[in-house]
Amino acid sequence: MVNFESDYICGAHPKLIARLQETNLEPATGYGDDRWSRDAARKILDACGCPEGAVYFLSGGTQVNAVAISAMLKSWEGVVTARTGHIHVHEAGALEAMGWKLLTLPETLGKISAADVQELTETVLADENREHIVWPGVVYLTHPTEWGTLYTRAELEQIAAVCRRYGLRLYLDGARMSYGLMSRNTDVDLKLIASLCDAFYIGGTKCGALCGEALVFPHGAPEHFANYTKKRLAMMAKGRIFGVQFDALFTDGLYYEIGRRGIETAERLKQILRAHGVPFYLETPTNQQFVILENGALERLREHVSVSYWSRTDEHHTIVRLATSWSTTDEDLETLDRAMGN
Amino acid sequence: MVNFESDYICGAHPKLIARLQETNLEPATGYGDDRWSRDAARKILDACGCPEGAVYFLSGGTQVNAVAISAMLKSWEGVVTARTGHIHVHEAGALEAMGWKLLTLPETLGKISAADVQELTETVLADENREHIVWPGVVYLTHPTEWGTLYTRAELEQIAAVCRRYGLRLYLDGARMSYGLMSRNTDVDLKLIASLCDAFYIGGTKCGALCGEALVFPHGAPEHFANYTKKRLAMMAKGRIFGVQFDALFTDGLYYEIGRRGIETAERLKQILRAHGVPFYLETPTNQQFVILENGALERLREHVSVSYWSRTDEHHTIVRLATSWSTTDEDLETLDRAMGN
Amino acid sequence: MVNFESDYICGAHPKLIARLQETNLEPATGYGDDRWSRDAARKILDACGCPEGAVYFLSGGTQVNAVAISAMLKSWEGVVTARTGHIHVHEAGALEAMGWKLLTLPETLGKISAADVQELTETVLADENREHIVWPGVVYLTHPTEWGTLYTRAELEQIAAVCRRYGLRLYLDGARMSYGLMSRNTDVDLKLIASLCDAFYIGGTKCGALCGEALVFPHGAPEHFANYTKKRLAMMAKGRIFGVQFDALFTDGLYYEIGRRGIETAERLKQILRAHGVPFYLETPTNQQFVILENGALERLREHVSVSYWSRTDEHHTIVRLATSWSTTDEDLETLDRAMGN
Amino acid sequence: MVNFESDYICGAHPKLIARLQETNLEPATGYGDDRWSRDAARKILDACGCPEGAVYFLSGGTQVNAVAISAMLKSWEGVVTARTGHIHVHEAGALEAMGWKLLTLPETLGKISAADVQELTETVLADENREHIVWPGVVYLTHPTEWGTLYTRAELEQIAAVCRRYGLRLYLDGARMSYGLMSRNTDVDLKLIASLCDAFYIGGTKCGALCGEALVFPHGAPEHFANYTKKRLAMMAKGRIFGVQFDALFTDGLYYEIGRRGIETAERLKQILRAHGVPFYLETPTNQQFVILENGALERLREHVSVSYWSRTDEHHTIVRLATSWSTTDEDLETLDRAMGN
Repeated sequence: MVNFESDYICGAHPKLIARLQETNLEPATGYGDDRWSRDAARKILDACGCPEGAVYFLSGGTQVNAVAISAMLKSWEGVVTARTGHIHVHEAGALEAMGWKLLTLPETLGKISAADVQELTETVLADENREHIVWPGVVYLTHPTEWGTLYTRAELEQIAAVCRRYGLRLYLDGARMSYGLMSRNTDVDLKLIASLCDAFYIGGTKCGALCGEALVFPHGAPEHFANYTKKRLAMMAKGRIFGVQFDALFTDGLYYEIGRRGIETAERLKQILRAHGVPFYLETPTNQQFVILENGALERLREHVSVSYWSRTDEHHTIVRLATSWSTTDEDLETLDRAMGN
Repeated sequence: MVNFESDYICGAHPKLIARLQETNLEPATGYGDDRWSRDAARKILDACGCPEGAVYFLSGGTQVNAVAISAMLKSWEGVVTARTGHIHVHEAGALEAMGWKLLTLPETLGKISAADVQELTETVLADENREHIVWPGVVYLTHPTEWGTLYTRAELEQIAAVCRRYGLRLYLDGARMSYGLMSRNTDVDLKLIASLCDAFYIGGTKCGALCGEALVFPHGAPEHFANYTKKRLAMMAKGRIFGVQFDALFTDGLYYEIGRRGIETAERLKQILRAHGVPFYLETPTNQQFVILENGALERLREHVSVSYWSRTDEHHTIVRLATSWSTTDEDLETLDRAMGN
Repeated sequence: MVNFESDYICGAHPKLIARLQETNLEPATGYGDDRWSRDAARKILDACGCPEGAVYFLSGGTQVNAVAISAMLKSWEGVVTARTGHIHVHEAGALEAMGWKLLTLPETLGKISAADVQELTETVLADENREHIVWPGVVYLTHPTEWGTLYTRAELEQIAAVCRRYGLRLYLDGARMSYGLMSRNTDVDLKLIASLCDAFYIGGTKCGALCGEALVFPHGAPEHFANYTKKRLAMMAKGRIFGVQFDALFTDGLYYEIGRRGIETAERLKQILRAHGVPFYLETPTNQQFVILENGALERLREHVSVSYWSRTDEHHTIVRLATSWSTTDEDLETLDRAMGN
Repeated sequence: MVNFESDYICGAHPKLIARLQETNLEPATGYGDDRWSRDAARKILDACGCPEGAVYFLSGGTQVNAVAISAMLKSWEGVVTARTGHIHVHEAGALEAMGWKLLTLPETLGKISAADVQELTETVLADENREHIVWPGVVYLTHPTEWGTLYTRAELEQIAAVCRRYGLRLYLDGARMSYGLMSRNTDVDLKLIASLCDAFYIGGTKCGALCGEALVFPHGAPEHFANYTKKRLAMMAKGRIFGVQFDALFTDGLYYEIGRRGIETAERLKQILRAHGVPFYLETPTNQQFVILENGALERLREHVSVSYWSRTDEHHTIVRLATSWSTTDEDLETLDRAMGN
């Protein structure tokens, strides 16, 4: 049995688990006030080119999205998201549970456009009943998207320009950031993201950490944000867990190395899928690939290979996702190749 | 200046204001425990053919929608609504503010279909990640819809059948119920609605009351519902205001008479609009009519006639609504006719 | 049967119901954008000496407390209240339902002290774990209090001074304001309250209106507050109901006249209770009086007189409230006197 | 510098970190559906004597308290807690942020009594205005308490009996459970707790884990509870982190061994404090000790020893906490002894 279900099937990258081991018995104050968290924050801000910013570590993607976005919204506002946005379709209504409406936009392969953000905003401003409706407040992007696609520098700049023009805040969900940064044809890097966004997070869980995401506010955090993370169930007693891991991830380029491995194995995965004539639903430049299988074929494949259900296309066919990551081995790929040959 | 903005431009139907006057100095216990509220509830349940049901009076439509739907949802559920549903587009995110996600469906002239409710539900049940998504719980309908259209008996029965099959609850927003009941070609009446829905409300504010909506639970209310209305800011100290008015509305068929007058004046309104060649965006069988005007023409019309902004179709054109009601006079219609002739 | 249960047992003061009648068929735009609401707001701001302020009309006390306080709190803050505060003991947890913690202080006859507000605040500021606790944000007072008592000018000034020193906002619940203003020995008036508070409301429901409270922000309302009232279920379609009534209340001193009548009848009520040797739990300078009755005696009294349960003192005794109001008649008092003689 | 600040100053118990290391590269499905989580759950239910129960792993105490209690409350209910309860004083208003009111009871050394729970409940039931108040729903206990004290078997049985009589649910916060179980004079064990409570958690973070708490529902979990943890930001992608650690904690009695070490070192800590004549505020049978220090003395002590601020007693004195744990070494105690001698 080989596992291509997701990019979070293993524990931590060996260098991270080793660091957790090495630092394990060193005492430290809790709640993020430890030397590793401070070091990690500094390294991240350096990598992002925003030394005056602030970094908070939270445990997972849904949590960081909900807490960060919620902290940036005003009472009359909601979040703009693609119809396929993770906050809209896979977070169990977490943002609504905190009181916020999601304003959905059409998407193309998981991406929204500056033009659609602008049109939505102007429609609200033109509405004579605008006291009865929810205004756009924060724009939510994922990069890579849920479909493994990437925004271009130009697309991000256009969206950011619309946000600035109308006083919206821009937030970017970087759960799989490392794979996005290391994709072969991207012109987007951390410094660009930090220069355009009001907040974003650099994913740990799917990029080599046991758990943890680094939330970056390039221009400083909302007032009393630590208190807010506590109130919203997102403050960890042993904040060191995040500090130690992100310190390691941002030492000697490990975060990028992890991304590179995920991309290399994804390229080989695509070759294998193509070689076996598996029909792609979407072939992507990052670490997630989507294929469409007849349900019987899916059942047979699952005897040997774990894959993720994505959605039904009709009664007889299912879209499934195969993901690679830092932990995908050559042997995993060979096993997949053989399983597909059966 | 004549006003066709909405169906809530005047105070109460003269019979209601007279009853408020007559009963004004009679002492009564607060919070709905008064004789008028009890009488009104009994008359409403009789009219609905569900004597074992329960009735609560709340002050307005957004309030009753949010409180009733919220009380019927379970923690993992959300509300199914047309994209044009009032709860989705004109209630300032009230249901989300109470923690609930709205699951939107496509609509045809404001109506959703049983087939779409079924497909949404089956998609969720088939999803292997269904612990990460919001399940359908309550289905929200408006009758008449926001576009003034009406469900047929068959359509309501089909939707109710899907709800029963999947354990969903059916809720109907009857803000303009009287106009729906008195529309010329409808086969839907209160008894049908009560037999199909788990909860619905009979609108007062837009159908002749100063304020107030009658929320009906044909099979009984959620446990401790009065406490919940208090907690959600929807309990009025002088509940008698609602009791006195709804007692009058459901005495001697006044509620239907009010609807009939709204429909008669709407028919004349449509004639006038047609006679002047005003292009309809939508001509409806109830008391709201939607026309599409060039922005300059709209501005000129507004010098004489109040109408409601609905939406923009393009930079130069606007959809506006004209509504009639129990309070529309023959003189109003004549003034409109003259204003249009200018 | 005579009713001393509360000050909201009747409809509206005859002048108000007459005005509702007179204006009934005059068309007006909804949601508070009508001429009476504008006139009423201006008269109220004049009476409060804060012409630059803003007034919003909401339907009841719990609603206005929850919406106004909620709009003034920041994410890390809570509301400071007496243990006997209405928001703490009789609003079904409405503020908590909106996400806010109540920080309770000891009280003396329903009143809190500036010293206690200060100590609470300094304790929080001194706490090394203050990221884990809720900070005081808004201070909630009632005037008259739930126990019918009144703050003095000096007490209010001291509390306001502490608020200013620590950046807290001061909010005053004036559900029974008219009786407080007309009490025989008070040195507190509307202008004082407006000069000290960030927000307060002038009660209508208990002071002569069918429904409605006037929320005053002497220095201006929170941004987009109308949108927030909609979102929180507190916007009435026919805002004119409030406008017409408050316009009448603040014309020719009617609001004060109403208070005066409540106080005069309360003085006679106290005489009657004393004459019959009914033991006071608390004799107050406003329109609510609290007596302590053996449970058998209470049952007998209730055969002739409606009174309100307040609390149990032990297994055999109950504290009950008798309230007068603008609607209390001489005959009511005489009937009570006779009933007590039985 | 030696650290007695808390019981979460180090990473994980060496056996746990070793197991995380050993299992690190073994693939597994996410969100708790892994073999270690299943094994750990089974071992915990065995230890609790409730094989039909359910176990969920969440990341920290505030999170598990808020999510579990919230899932057990009905809309008209609140949580009963000691005034010193962690949910009331140190969780930043997390339960209120989810919409719930806390009903506080007086406490003796952190413990509430069955009699007080009963009186509160009967007071609510006797109140004629009970539709306006929050009813008790869940009773929250901590064991050990925030003050390091322990309930006796008899006390817990009495509280549980009151809960059963009135239909309340009993919840126990066991953040420091291992130290409670291993305290020298307790008659409370896991099986007793499981037999009395509707839900409780066995603390990991303060008892040897990197992070994680085991929430036990002895009679089964609320419906769709996994979905609810996701919605409330408490579902971890790599659920294995908790599974691996709790599997180790409940193998070969490690959880008890950890508690025993914390208690042994606490006994020595008390001796040292006594030997140096440090005035106790409270000497406890578990791993937390509270002393009262003059502020200058505190400042001097902190040059060598990290301790936790607890509260101020007056302007010049502070209560501080010293805690031991599984990670406290003999050397730590000797260093403390020497530092005190300075």
